[in-house]
Amino acid sequence: MTKSTKVNAAILIIGNEILSGRTQDTNTSTIAIWLNSIGVKVKEVRVIPDTEVTIVDTVNHLRNTYDYVFTTGGIGPTHDDITAQSISKAFNLRYEIHKEAFRILEAYYKIGEFNEGRKKMVWMPRNANLILNPTSGAPGFNVENVFCLPGVPSILKSMLGGLTSTIIGGEPILSFTISLKTVESEIASSLTKIQDENQDVEIGSYPFFQAGKLGVSIVIRSEDQSKIDNCNAKILEFVNEKKIEIVKR
Amino acid sequence: MTKSTKVNAAILIIGNEILSGRTQDTNTSTIAIWLNSIGVKVKEVRVIPDTEVTIVDTVNHLRNTYDYVFTTGGIGPTHDDITAQSISKAFNLRYEIHKEAFRILEAYYKIGEFNEGRKKMVWMPRNANLILNPTSGAPGFNVENVFCLPGVPSILKSMLGGLTSTIIGGEPILSFTISLKTVESEIASSLTKIQDENQDVEIGSYPFFQAGKLGVSIVIRSEDQSKIDNCNAKILEFVNEKKIEIVKR
Repeated sequence: MTKSTKVNAAILIIGNEILSGRTQDTNTSTIAIWLNSIGVKVKEVRVIPDTEVTIVDTVNHLRNTYDYVFTTGGIGPTHDDITAQSISKAFNLRYEIHKEAFRILEAYYKIGEFNEGRKKMVWMPRNANLILNPTSGAPGFNVENVFCLPGVPSILKSMLGGLTSTIIGGEPILSFTISLKTVESEIASSLTKIQDENQDVEIGSYPFFQAGKLGVSIVIRSEDQSKIDNCNAKILEFVNEKKIEIVKR
Repeated sequence: MTKSTKVNAAILIIGNEILSGRTQDTNTSTIAIWLNSIGVKVKEVRVIPDTEVTIVDTVNHLRNTYDYVFTTGGIGPTHDDITAQSISKAFNLRYEIHKEAFRILEAYYKIGEFNEGRKKMVWMPRNANLILNPTSGAPGFNVENVFCLPGVPSILKSMLGGLTSTIIGGEPILSFTISLKTVESEIASSLTKIQDENQDVEIGSYPFFQAGKLGVSIVIRSEDQSKIDNCNAKILEFVNEKKIEIVKR
């Protein structure tokens, strides 16, 4: 992939616990912020259950649609961890013991502690590339453009840094936020005009209610700082005109 | 729809701010927990950008696949709020002023405050049913099985109660959690056996690391309490056998 400003990705959260509402997903935000910083834009997120056929079909759709796919969850030692076998099916690869992963976990655990459950975690699609895990030993892996990470947020977070040089992104996506003491309806038409005149810049408007403050945050996103600055200048024009207070959040 | 134990739903989160990682979605968990309580199981969640063609295509796919679809986001007064017009296109309905919504907002705002921005919020697909908003006036709406809610979590939360009698669910999905001072690999094979013998029960295994405690929560889900009790009894058997401590979380 050549360096481009239009590299995209999908995130696939695998796990019944997110769909049931028991667990609040935080990995989407972690992965998206990291991807932005290396110039990859997340275009879609899906959350699906621990069901093999659903994982296989969804991975095959996403990997053919986006430049990168990041999955989270389902690579642990229990019966509901079926991501590695599903990815093997999706790519039509043998699901087998990965020798390097085996050596890593054999060295990681004390003698006698590398038990059957843990040995399940070295089964992967044939010739998968490992993603090292500085927190708890068991590596993730990637096949082509599909990167499989664990569901536990602290472990996932610790593994992203090691991937930064592997992912070929475009220009980092820059973002600027200006927060105003106003309501959306007061600024809607002025903002619409600015968005219409700057169609390649992403301008979002988000009301907030917190700590007794009520306001609107306007988020301007682009790979090009001068475009952000230009939109911000236009925003400041109507802010001054309407005598709207700028607030810190 | 007749009362059935197999009523399902998809959640569609509409908003660039979730895909960029700026905002952490919490609405999935809120909606999923509420749906569980009225017997509707969430089978899929998607997060997509504020792009009309994507919203139209995704809504049309999801509404034909699941019993219910709940969307969040994009029903405010600004240029990036395009859910109502997109739903109109998805159903091939006129996008027009909804008279009842107009009357509600006209009464809600003080004289002179029902401005152009706010008037945008009464544009909806023709003949949409309103979902009342006890927090901030502007109603959501549904067309057939697609229910459109706002993105602001506190407002969304306040609107679900009014929908409970509209959604026809099955038996509530019951859940029981037992937390153990162990690691997943120690219990993996015992749990697999129980899951194999109880294929219509959902058994999830989730490691936790918090407040200095390390352990595994096992979550058992079913519409049938006796099936949950039976699985729990089997779990307690191996817990006693392996002398594993049960912990509170």
